[in-house]
Amino acid sequence: MNALLAPGLSRTAAIIEGRMASDAAPRIPEVTAHLVGAGGKRVRPVLVLASAALCGETGEDAAKLAATVEFIHTATLLHDDVVDESRQRRGRPSANLLWDNQSSVLVGDYLFARAFQLMVEPGSLRVLGILSNAAATIAEGEVLQLTASRNLATDEATYLRVVRGKTAALFSAATEAGAELAGADAGTVAALRDYGDALGIAFQIADDLLDWEGGAEIGKNPGDDLREGKMSLPVIKAVASGSREFWHRTIELGRVDAGDFEQALDLVRAAGALDETRTEALGWSARAKAMLNGAPEGPVRDALADLADYVVARIA
Amino acid sequence: MNALLAPGLSRTAAIIEGRMASDAAPRIPEVTAHLVGAGGKRVRPVLVLASAALCGETGEDAAKLAATVEFIHTATLLHDDVVDESRQRRGRPSANLLWDNQSSVLVGDYLFARAFQLMVEPGSLRVLGILSNAAATIAEGEVLQLTASRNLATDEATYLRVVRGKTAALFSAATEAGAELAGADAGTVAALRDYGDALGIAFQIADDLLDWEGGAEIGKNPGDDLREGKMSLPVIKAVASGSREFWHRTIELGRVDAGDFEQALDLVRAAGALDETRTEALGWSARAKAMLNGAPEGPVRDALADLADYVVARIA
Repeated sequence: MNALLAPGLSRTAAIIEGRMASDAAPRIPEVTAHLVGAGGKRVRPVLVLASAALCGETGEDAAKLAATVEFIHTATLLHDDVVDESRQRRGRPSANLLWDNQSSVLVGDYLFARAFQLMVEPGSLRVLGILSNAAATIAEGEVLQLTASRNLATDEATYLRVVRGKTAALFSAATEAGAELAGADAGTVAALRDYGDALGIAFQIADDLLDWEGGAEIGKNPGDDLREGKMSLPVIKAVASGSREFWHRTIELGRVDAGDFEQALDLVRAAGALDETRTEALGWSARAKAMLNGAPEGPVRDALADLADYVVARIA
Repeated sequence: MNALLAPGLSRTAAIIEGRMASDAAPRIPEVTAHLVGAGGKRVRPVLVLASAALCGETGEDAAKLAATVEFIHTATLLHDDVVDESRQRRGRPSANLLWDNQSSVLVGDYLFARAFQLMVEPGSLRVLGILSNAAATIAEGEVLQLTASRNLATDEATYLRVVRGKTAALFSAATEAGAELAGADAGTVAALRDYGDALGIAFQIADDLLDWEGGAEIGKNPGDDLREGKMSLPVIKAVASGSREFWHRTIELGRVDAGDFEQALDLVRAAGALDETRTEALGWSARAKAMLNGAPEGPVRDALADLADYVVARIA
């Protein structure tokens, strides 16, 4: 995929580099360089560029929108780390730890604003509608996640809403905006939007599953979600089948002792929750691939199909 | 002024009420209702409505932009209170105290996103350019203020840049966007933008002066800025004329003891810094009024001139 989109990706990198600077406030490039320099997979810019290219648009405007979604994503990471009191991000100490929460909040705001400046430039009101709606859905999902945390009453519908907010909204806005920018017909735009939505959900469910099954080799520290009181899909499914006393103590009261993760793992396994979660992630991945039938054929479409396999490869 | 703009203001209030809600995340309307319910002067919406009305536009789109600037302002208040660890806002306990920092950060993000959704709706790319640039300038100013704090090397040029960011950028974007929405000619748009810029600077300098001269009757607690290590104009001017040891201890090291505010007051008075600061605020107010010569005559223009007097009335 990255080979197919190489010129667009290097244009995007140049825009990110240029726009994250600020002459007025030197703290800004310090923080952004720390975060952007650490890399990350840039899957969201890839989705914009791929979707636009698939529909015939490979110019500077596509790169601007690709940089836009990366800025929105980076801004939410900065704010998430304040909210979660994180200590690590992309394998480095997080910005809130290196500088302070203040800098993370305000530099995040700056990146949001830069994203909005960038998305205005291509001059498409429809694209602006897509991306500003996504920004609202993301923020809504983050707030919802906050109130769902440590709350055993959280159900699967709420979980899906949180996942759409925190991950799928920006994935689907990326593919939808790319297609819209390229002037694709309504059916194609909708197909690519739905591909992004399903891909994002598959990605997030797989990520939540890996918190139970993964290990340090993939950058996971099993049990983190339990300790944070996160109501992820395996827990929601396990709670529905019993042992409320255990979940009340660990999730709601936050009292997690040695051996509790192992017991929790036994409970989610016994409830069949891990297998069900895996099946759901694979289902969303399959749905993403099915959506591609509504998009133009070619090597970029094949690469998008591969991406849908890739996001669940670690759990399959 | 408020009588002249009454229909627009009630339309704006209805939009604010409607758009600050969220079905998905009940925490959002709790926080926004707390803050928006506390009132505030709504000077920024007034600036949009007045500028638009002056140029012949009094419809729904003007109210949408008025609600937009109020949302941006409210979002920055929520984030400022996290950054400053404030305990009060608009005479009530601040949101970060009533809920938590997380809610303030995320609900602020939600209001930013809602602002961007709203500003897209009138369909004017020029208005979008104005408001997205203002958002970036605001965030830049906030970061600059953070690094200027407790730093005696801060000069008047930096102070002005901070003031433009934290206050004048949204004032001038409000008046510029209102005129632009109404389709005013370039000269009128520029005059109203410059009016907003000068008005915002006059307002902020007066506010900083009141931290030295004001009292509880206007909601001020003299000496707050000194205790926070804020490099406001009176301090910058006083530092330039001596007593560096005192300022080093109080501002840079943050060691403020009983009697220090009185000593600081003596120092800024002796340096003539309060009078100079007052003169600057009055000068910006006069400049704001002069800019109105470039705008259409009538009762709304007269009300804008009165507003320029009003913002410095407390210090004149």
